[in-house]
Amino acid sequence: MIFNKVKGFKTVENKDFLRKAEELKPVLFKTKVVPTPSISEPMGKGDTLLLDFLDHQVGYLHFHASSVGSPADAPAKIRIRYAERKEELEENWDEYKGEISSSWLQEETFFLDYLPVTISLPRRHAFRYIEIKVIDTTPKYKVRLSHIHSISVSSADYRLVPEINIKDKMLKRIDEVSLRTMHECMQEVFEDGPKRDARLWLGDLRLQALGNYATFQNADLVKRCLYLFAGSTMRDGRVGAGLFHKPKVQVDDTILFDYSLFFVSTLKEYYDFTKDIETLKDLFPTAKRQISLSLLELDGKGIVKDHDNWWCFLDWGEGLNKQAGAQAILISALKDAKEMASILGLDTAVYDTNIDTLTFAAKKYLFDEAKGLFVSGKKKQISWASQIYFVLSGIFDKETNRKILSNIEKEPHSIKMVTPFLHHYYVMALLEVGEKEKAISVIKSYWGDMILDGADTFYEVYDPQNKRSSPYGDWVINSFCHAWSGTPSYFIRRHLG
Amino acid sequence: MIFNKVKGFKTVENKDFLRKAEELKPVLFKTKVVPTPSISEPMGKGDTLLLDFLDHQVGYLHFHASSVGSPADAPAKIRIRYAERKEELEENWDEYKGEISSSWLQEETFFLDYLPVTISLPRRHAFRYIEIKVIDTTPKYKVRLSHIHSISVSSADYRLVPEINIKDKMLKRIDEVSLRTMHECMQEVFEDGPKRDARLWLGDLRLQALGNYATFQNADLVKRCLYLFAGSTMRDGRVGAGLFHKPKVQVDDTILFDYSLFFVSTLKEYYDFTKDIETLKDLFPTAKRQISLSLLELDGKGIVKDHDNWWCFLDWGEGLNKQAGAQAILISALKDAKEMASILGLDTAVYDTNIDTLTFAAKKYLFDEAKGLFVSGKKKQISWASQIYFVLSGIFDKETNRKILSNIEKEPHSIKMVTPFLHHYYVMALLEVGEKEKAISVIKSYWGDMILDGADTFYEVYDPQNKRSSPYGDWVINSFCHAWSGTPSYFIRRHLG
Repeated sequence: MIFNKVKGFKTVENKDFLRKAEELKPVLFKTKVVPTPSISEPMGKGDTLLLDFLDHQVGYLHFHASSVGSPADAPAKIRIRYAERKEELEENWDEYKGEISSSWLQEETFFLDYLPVTISLPRRHAFRYIEIKVIDTTPKYKVRLSHIHSISVSSADYRLVPEINIKDKMLKRIDEVSLRTMHECMQEVFEDGPKRDARLWLGDLRLQALGNYATFQNADLVKRCLYLFAGSTMRDGRVGAGLFHKPKVQVDDTILFDYSLFFVSTLKEYYDFTKDIETLKDLFPTAKRQISLSLLELDGKGIVKDHDNWWCFLDWGEGLNKQAGAQAILISALKDAKEMASILGLDTAVYDTNIDTLTFAAKKYLFDEAKGLFVSGKKKQISWASQIYFVLSGIFDKETNRKILSNIEKEPHSIKMVTPFLHHYYVMALLEVGEKEKAISVIKSYWGDMILDGADTFYEVYDPQNKRSSPYGDWVINSFCHAWSGTPSYFIRRHLG
Repeated sequence: MIFNKVKGFKTVENKDFLRKAEELKPVLFKTKVVPTPSISEPMGKGDTLLLDFLDHQVGYLHFHASSVGSPADAPAKIRIRYAERKEELEENWDEYKGEISSSWLQEETFFLDYLPVTISLPRRHAFRYIEIKVIDTTPKYKVRLSHIHSISVSSADYRLVPEINIKDKMLKRIDEVSLRTMHECMQEVFEDGPKRDARLWLGDLRLQALGNYATFQNADLVKRCLYLFAGSTMRDGRVGAGLFHKPKVQVDDTILFDYSLFFVSTLKEYYDFTKDIETLKDLFPTAKRQISLSLLELDGKGIVKDHDNWWCFLDWGEGLNKQAGAQAILISALKDAKEMASILGLDTAVYDTNIDTLTFAAKKYLFDEAKGLFVSGKKKQISWASQIYFVLSGIFDKETNRKILSNIEKEPHSIKMVTPFLHHYYVMALLEVGEKEKAISVIKSYWGDMILDGADTFYEVYDPQNKRSSPYGDWVINSFCHAWSGTPSYFIRRHLG
């Protein structure tokens, strides 16, 4: 894991934008959810209780605890573990070896000094299952738990989701699980996943916004997140790859080339859905700034400079070179920016010039005519990511793009897709070239396989060949309800209906 | 460890007594105590900070935590361990193997989700040292702690302690440490020790009350505790060995023969100090009931029946037989009860009869004329405990008693003293027979040795030959500030001045 840090990090605030974001902060819906079971037998030292909430929850655990036997003559020491998937509880959390912080493991250990007591745990967790273990009591008493429930939260409103009739049973279930995934990630902001940082990330936001337009239709939440990103930027006006909204709004010091540019596309897609010209006027300068900063990264040939560090995301494929994908995403962002400039009655010539330069350079230096595939970096690496983002950039015609997507399937030594994030763009690319059946087949095989794997919500990472794979070095820290995986509803409702 | 449980346990409340106890609840003095250091360097994963509060505290930890570096992109997981003695922190608490609950280990693990944050920990702990360990952060930030302090609590008021001039340096220090021990154990009730159950136990209460009369002079706190014990009794009117005062007042279901009888002596000693005849009138019936219940335990010969279970305390000596000590304590209690009856103008004949019967039986069946020592139980066990309690019962004259205390020293196979509790009664016995120099020598060698061992407060258990001994199977759970060890001030101020 490479942690991206900016030296001498300074931020700039736009108080007007932050005020608008604050005004749009949603009031969360709260739902009381009772698990099975909701009451325990008397529990002594070492006893555990497994609760099943039957679906994924983002919530706060509440319960009542009383003593059975003699008066409680020592505190009851209780350990609670929250799991999105039951299998997480079978792992030895104490031997966690992942590269990101063990503080993300959803565990709490605490003491009940006096019984009976009603406990309302103050930390929010993401779970379908909860394991409550009595670490210790005394031989004189046991603990009985009752009134166990979660106060579950979300800013998504199921009543606003258009009812549609999906005949295919698997697609219907994929839609339901997508909705649940989005529902759980929609809180005071669009969170990437409620299990860990619960943070705004631009790459996730773009996909969440698309899914949301087709389902929960909470455009104000997208608007709020755009204002947050524009309201706290780096000193040079760059939006962060991510943003903290608690304890105060602050841009993260992680820079990702593609993520910054997704601000442009997210703003454009927001306008497409809402026709909210005021917001477009407010935020277009921020979008434009991302373009300008990205153009500074071009080399003399009109190609985005490559780097060794973690400078651009695209996907989590091991060893994936980012140069070609970054070039493609910049071209897409230029096209989106041009369209917005046009709507706002601004001059678009600068966009045309840059689109032409980058397109010409991409075709000349990044496209291998013989193979009919894009290559990336010094070693001319071939990856699915490069092809997918270039197909979406539209620098070739539909037929050439169709062939590219066909060619990559036959290429034996390519870097494969590993995240639902890239699978989303793959499905988009397939639809773009008219491969609707293939798109359905990818959705049913990739997302459908997660359902066969027992998913209640879609995962952050899913490799059907290696179900325990993790970008963090330990599967147990993976997020199993992750926003960027919730887009099948968008495809089903917008493109496959 | 044998845990004493009463089957079909039922309790009786006297609401009038409980109301009086509640009215006497003290307001605690709160003191802000700043440790060395009170601010940390930036701390990363695995870093620890050792705080020294320079003296024993019973208090609540407060601190401010901020992040250094990038914004905190994951919670900081913090573990806090509280230790009365520094050596506790060198032990592996995770491998605790003691017989009483591991929930007494003074440890908290929690998460700081958002930084900066001001933390006020809600649980009270007993400590001089605190170890704060950062279990995990991320490579992007460290945690800095500042404004670290304890809000320490006690109902004892140092200003009320009479100033005396103690020339002997060791006795002076023993007096200071005794005072601190009592101070720390004086809270809303007289606690046995603030590290663990912080509970009222009658055996501790009696010694605390004596120490308190000679020092902090908080007679109302003794009165409150006597009303608590009398306000919640077992169905037959027996006071418990201990009493819970939180979350509600409730007698514990542990019965100890000697502890119930200490109610009688504690009431008598309270009256001696206060001349509070109203309280004596209120509570004498409860005292009398303890006598009646104890007399039911006599066999046909006038000897207290022996039992195999943990029915009487006396001391924690391994294998100690309790029969003789119990007999002696019953005789002492009868004498105290008789004196109170006399003060209240009640008939005392019944006490005289019983004192005579028990004294005659003790001399006939429990005293080994040849050895000049008391024996206990079927196997005629010889222990220091039996001699000490019988000397204090006054059934022999001063000279015989002096010889008994001399004889036990020469007896090779006796059960020795292991607690400061029994050492207290030993010193009392020495003073009773006029061995003032010897009493001073015991105080200086036994309690003085704890001071040389680094004690800030006196311990629950202290065996100079085996400093890691524990009645619980693991030294780390021992209480190192224990009320029953705080009586040297009583001797120094009342008898050795």
